[in-house]
Amino acid sequence: MKKTELLYEGKAKKVFRTDNDDTLHVEYKDDATAFDGKKKEMLSGKGRLNNEISALIFAKLHELGIPNHFIERISQTEQRIRKAEMIPLEVVVRNRAAGSLVKRLGLERGQDMTPPVIEWYLKDDNLGDPLINEEHIRVLGAAAADELTEMKALALRCNTALIELFQNAGLILVDFKLEFGRDHSGRIILADEISPDTCRLWDAKTGDSLDKDLFRFDGGNLQGAYETIFSRLGGLTNDV
Amino acid sequence: MKKTELLYEGKAKKVFRTDNDDTLHVEYKDDATAFDGKKKEMLSGKGRLNNEISALIFAKLHELGIPNHFIERISQTEQRIRKAEMIPLEVVVRNRAAGSLVKRLGLERGQDMTPPVIEWYLKDDNLGDPLINEEHIRVLGAAAADELTEMKALALRCNTALIELFQNAGLILVDFKLEFGRDHSGRIILADEISPDTCRLWDAKTGDSLDKDLFRFDGGNLQGAYETIFSRLGGLTNDV
Repeated sequence: MKKTELLYEGKAKKVFRTDNDDTLHVEYKDDATAFDGKKKEMLSGKGRLNNEISALIFAKLHELGIPNHFIERISQTEQRIRKAEMIPLEVVVRNRAAGSLVKRLGLERGQDMTPPVIEWYLKDDNLGDPLINEEHIRVLGAAAADELTEMKALALRCNTALIELFQNAGLILVDFKLEFGRDHSGRIILADEISPDTCRLWDAKTGDSLDKDLFRFDGGNLQGAYETIFSRLGGLTNDV
Repeated sequence: MKKTELLYEGKAKKVFRTDNDDTLHVEYKDDATAFDGKKKEMLSGKGRLNNEISALIFAKLHELGIPNHFIERISQTEQRIRKAEMIPLEVVVRNRAAGSLVKRLGLERGQDMTPPVIEWYLKDDNLGDPLINEEHIRVLGAAAADELTEMKALALRCNTALIELFQNAGLILVDFKLEFGRDHSGRIILADEISPDTCRLWDAKTGDSLDKDLFRFDGGNLQGAYETIFSRLGGLTNDV
């Protein structure tokens, strides 16, 4: 299967068509961005690590019966995925208070949220990806009510699976962001990526951030942290 | 019934205890504030008009069986209300897109929202009264799930009543904010005020704003607009 024209270039990925209508080819980039692209840098190895970690996680979710767009890892920075009509929403699942939730509600960072809090954000750079509610989604026509129900159910199943996966790697899953799409038959499937760019992960022993917050707040060695996560998840750092 | 100690002074009102435990005495102030108090002015007549309009509307809602805290108008600027344990939430009902909704979702001002959009805001000046969702409310413990259901149902009944009331006065009810409390038996009742400070009202013929947006955006004669609303609702402007 050959990649053909560039379909889309985002902050972290390039997506190409292939000679198969139902399949896309993704290349992960080394660009790091935060705060709606206001902070930007090239970080060598980031594309590789996000591709490897995301591939590993999506394969695991397939095993658990959570429908997602992942087909196969092609190389250190590339994977093949199923084409989906992307829904312009971000679903955020929060197990502990961090980031914007701490600011919005005045909570203490780290406060346990059980049962997890689910939030919707509108994927729109011009609007700054605002928090929205389900009535806003209705007005925007972004997704149907039954699709929201399905996305929430999948997000919670995903949360249960990821909490365990990361726990076994000595990591606390603080929160994460998911994106969904509709496959050719209209079924909701998990899409985009799941990586330390889209999850907040804290070391279970030290409480240290091992995710994009290191980049957001200049806290330290982002690549080292992502390598740590990949290797704790069982990845082979120099695999080709 | 005599007013006794000052219990609370907010941006627009002073609330006093009375010699009856279940009753409070409210004085409406002439202060106009907007943008979380960042813009502030004294506007002579504003306290009187908000008191008169709010009294008139709450009395109407009583007639329609919508439980609320209003007992009686005492003077041009004072009313007696039932004491309630205030819930620190604002419920916003939107029939048309305006204000923060236009900015948040990138909608066209005036766009019809039918069925109305309901939003929750956390009443917290330090946090800037943020938009929140029902899971945030659970985490904050601000209200129980069945209370939220009751508040939404009352807000929608209130919307139906107010749309008609204002329509008969040649006004379009664009959106409005409600606050609720629990009475001595724990029942949810409508509280606070309903006035051109808390409603967006547009003239049905000209589309002109006749509400606090005149103050927010220096659009014109706030007092004149509030007098217009009061008189169109059947109020007697020089009533004592």
